[in-house]
Amino acid sequence: MAPRWKGRGCEAKALVDPMSMIIHQLQRSLSESNSCGLLSGHSVLLEVTAEQIQVLNRSCFGRPVITAEKNTLWFQLGLEEAFYLCHSLNCLTVKDSNDGPVSPPELWNYAVSVKPEFPILYKAYSHLRAKNWVVRPGSQYGVDFVAYRHHPALVHSEYAVLALLHGDDESSESNGRLRVWSDILCTVRLCGSVAKTLLVIYINRNGHDPSSPGCLDGYTVQERTIRRWNPEQCREGEGQPLPQPRPQLSAENAST
Amino acid sequence: MAPRWKGRGCEAKALVDPMSMIIHQLQRSLSESNSCGLLSGHSVLLEVTAEQIQVLNRSCFGRPVITAEKNTLWFQLGLEEAFYLCHSLNCLTVKDSNDGPVSPPELWNYAVSVKPEFPILYKAYSHLRAKNWVVRPGSQYGVDFVAYRHHPALVHSEYAVLALLHGDDESSESNGRLRVWSDILCTVRLCGSVAKTLLVIYINRNGHDPSSPGCLDGYTVQERTIRRWNPEQCREGEGQPLPQPRPQLSAENAST
Repeated sequence: MAPRWKGRGCEAKALVDPMSMIIHQLQRSLSESNSCGLLSGHSVLLEVTAEQIQVLNRSCFGRPVITAEKNTLWFQLGLEEAFYLCHSLNCLTVKDSNDGPVSPPELWNYAVSVKPEFPILYKAYSHLRAKNWVVRPGSQYGVDFVAYRHHPALVHSEYAVLALLHGDDESSESNGRLRVWSDILCTVRLCGSVAKTLLVIYINRNGHDPSSPGCLDGYTVQERTIRRWNPEQCREGEGQPLPQPRPQLSAENAST
Repeated sequence: MAPRWKGRGCEAKALVDPMSMIIHQLQRSLSESNSCGLLSGHSVLLEVTAEQIQVLNRSCFGRPVITAEKNTLWFQLGLEEAFYLCHSLNCLTVKDSNDGPVSPPELWNYAVSVKPEFPILYKAYSHLRAKNWVVRPGSQYGVDFVAYRHHPALVHSEYAVLALLHGDDESSESNGRLRVWSDILCTVRLCGSVAKTLLVIYINRNGHDPSSPGCLDGYTVQERTIRRWNPEQCREGEGQPLPQPRPQLSAENAST
């Protein structure tokens, strides 16, 4: 499925302003100001300057929080976003409500304690972000994330993303998705109706214990897209070459 | 959600021709002709007369099979449908490919061997059929069944039905649906987009072993509908009474 740009010129705008550069600007801006977020429940709150709001918005990290304070502007980062800025981009520090510093390993342990599936979700999130996809929450479509080729103002999200365990761990976890046909049919139909491709990020823990962020290096990732196969589209057309039949569950690489 | 009749007069037509009467006619027609189906894979094939085709179509059991034989007409029944006609309506016998008779307990064991989830699916199927809902396969919508108030020619299906284990058994089965929020969100969104309500038939086996159809009497059934709660619809309107807030997962009775 081709990317669905939101209007004329959007693709050109995206080309001259690549997401990798925007992320680089965000990294520099947060580093230079020694940004420090406040850990609060399932999110990290960040007091921001007007310039930082712009670059956070452009890179699609977090969302602005409306408060009663007139001169202070806050951004709310999800745990995956905060940990990506702390650990992968190394441009954010975090403190707890007593103003005590929270190191990346401490933030990791906190995230795992409030959200046991955090290691798997984070591995999928960071895997896509590292490839310069814009990754946002996917609960609206009943998936873990949605992935955009560039800013959501320019393009519709292309992938509905599920992060699932694979390999030896698979059978030990009873709560995953896509274990019965009805779930696969349901998810693929919903994705089709909102013009997205279902992208499953299978994560193999290779026996690594998720007790510290170091486990992430031991995790391996497989990307699979799952689509409905339409026999109508595979019929011999007039003057057209005969398309190759494709399996119903097609495994394709989803990298940029 | 109100039933969506397919045109003017459809509701009146359904009222004067209740499904209970149609099922009664089917039962009489099959009994009088000593109908005997042929067990074949995941279905039962039934040689039918023109009159029986009509009443099978009106009651929505099975589907016609196109064959090369000119003077013979066949209907293909799913395992739930065949067992319902054999066991609940007692108007069909079944034989195997060697012309040997297959008793209802033998048919039960065969169905469980080729489809381990058969006891749960059949309990849900028979529960809805006994209440005169028309029950058809739901794979198109990623669910186990869809349920119609009357014939699909007159009315759209109202419920997308999932049959799930409940009670003590629940944790022992790792393959069910609706165990994670993303699956619930996905299923509810898809049902909403096709104007159906998600009906979950929770079945508690109460420790009964599914080794014979006798276990069905020991199974208990709970019906739950799951819908998205829309806060917009709960706002105070002009001149309207303030609607009561409803929980996001509402439990309602889905009987006729």
